[in-house]
Amino acid sequence: MNFMEKEKPIGVFDSGIGGLTVVKRLMSVLPKESIVYFGDTARVPYGSKSNETVIEYSVQNTKFLIQKNVKAVVVACNTASSIALNELRKQFDVPVIGMIEPGAEMAVHQTKNKKIGVIGTRATIANKAYSKAIKEINPDIEVFEKACPLFVPLAEEGWTNHKATYEIAEEYLEELREKEIDTLVLGCTHYPILADVIQDVIGKNVKLIDSGVASSEVVREELRRIGLETNSAVPGNAFFYVSDIPTTFKQVAELFLGKEIKEVVKVDVSELGK
Amino acid sequence: MNFMEKEKPIGVFDSGIGGLTVVKRLMSVLPKESIVYFGDTARVPYGSKSNETVIEYSVQNTKFLIQKNVKAVVVACNTASSIALNELRKQFDVPVIGMIEPGAEMAVHQTKNKKIGVIGTRATIANKAYSKAIKEINPDIEVFEKACPLFVPLAEEGWTNHKATYEIAEEYLEELREKEIDTLVLGCTHYPILADVIQDVIGKNVKLIDSGVASSEVVREELRRIGLETNSAVPGNAFFYVSDIPTTFKQVAELFLGKEIKEVVKVDVSELGK
Repeated sequence: MNFMEKEKPIGVFDSGIGGLTVVKRLMSVLPKESIVYFGDTARVPYGSKSNETVIEYSVQNTKFLIQKNVKAVVVACNTASSIALNELRKQFDVPVIGMIEPGAEMAVHQTKNKKIGVIGTRATIANKAYSKAIKEINPDIEVFEKACPLFVPLAEEGWTNHKATYEIAEEYLEELREKEIDTLVLGCTHYPILADVIQDVIGKNVKLIDSGVASSEVVREELRRIGLETNSAVPGNAFFYVSDIPTTFKQVAELFLGKEIKEVVKVDVSELGK
Repeated sequence: MNFMEKEKPIGVFDSGIGGLTVVKRLMSVLPKESIVYFGDTARVPYGSKSNETVIEYSVQNTKFLIQKNVKAVVVACNTASSIALNELRKQFDVPVIGMIEPGAEMAVHQTKNKKIGVIGTRATIANKAYSKAIKEINPDIEVFEKACPLFVPLAEEGWTNHKATYEIAEEYLEELREKEIDTLVLGCTHYPILADVIQDVIGKNVKLIDSGVASSEVVREELRRIGLETNSAVPGNAFFYVSDIPTTFKQVAELFLGKEIKEVVKVDVSELGK
């Protein structure tokens, strides 16, 4: 393994900007690593698209990251993680880390009463990706899932502390509270933005699982295992690419990332996957 | 003009399901006419896409409707109306009716104090389509625009009477209330679903303009002008096509349409525009 291999960046893609919460976690867990982010903002959302299309787009996005010379790829999108991971692992040689397995694993480790809640978009909840992953690790665990479609637009509005957000959370989480879960998986990369509200409403005794934290830990283990951790002594760089730049991109992206984004480069969708 | 021409259906397309509120109005204004609806649910939303892409998709959708033998096309999508109308009118011989001009026209007729509010998605408000159309009719009118991004997901959740919806409406509409508008354009086809809340919050003295009603009136005038009103004595039929069928499609679509949808046919996106 030569020196240069270790200094390659980690690639991260998402259907939009939600994956920036994962980048934030990666930066905190692996501060010396450099990151290349691609947000497919022109083709968001993936949740309403066919499996075939989600796989096609995920392959294109991964090719783009590979062209940027990344040493590993993080699929920072729950929909793409649940649908495209096997295909990406088949087609590409670099390690590919998704959201579902690490999040499920961490939740199983956390729960004491074996009652885990999962919240996500309609698509993620409908395909039961987390339930399946959790039951595969331990079939005795009870999993309660609930779609919370308004959480994404609330996060993008930046209403992290609004009275309406509390009321919506009360409505969505009531069922899970009644089930007496002790662990709650934030099964959508937007949700960490609303973590304070969610924690308040679900109760302080429930442990929230941020899949971005879980997957960052898996990335660290994986890089260590294959001997590709950076040797750098200084903080890594981050590069941001998107397929479209919506009006409010900068403001929302910085809320999600938790720091300033100095430059973002727009990539033409028709150039992806070439 | 032969008999058969008059009995052709009216075509309606939208980027998704919002246009069904327009179909509801069309059915009420022109109950004897048949309707073919196409909702591009696989490629929704159009608001975050480039003008070039919105035009390309709009041309494809219109071709699809023309293949279904329609006598007129209603662009029941504010984004496509503001971007693609000229191109559609250039490429197709049938009358093409959008949302913006009829809504602007009706608002100008309604206002007494010459202060009109417009609410819509971020994309519609950013391109100032209604402001421009209103100012073109009467440059003396003051127009106050406000993006209300949470109204679309609230409508799709069916939270038409929820406390959270009232609070969100209070927050969004406060500015417009202070401007003392007497007319408010619902510049998004989803918003009629929330009309009761919006009316309560903005005040009973403000007249709401439903672009679906306005455009239905224009369709009636246009069909009359070109002699293509149906001669049928019985209620028309309605046919529904979509490019994808999301999990909750039927439930949300029926809320928007205000009646049962017996059958919906999925069209493959790759077949569009051929």
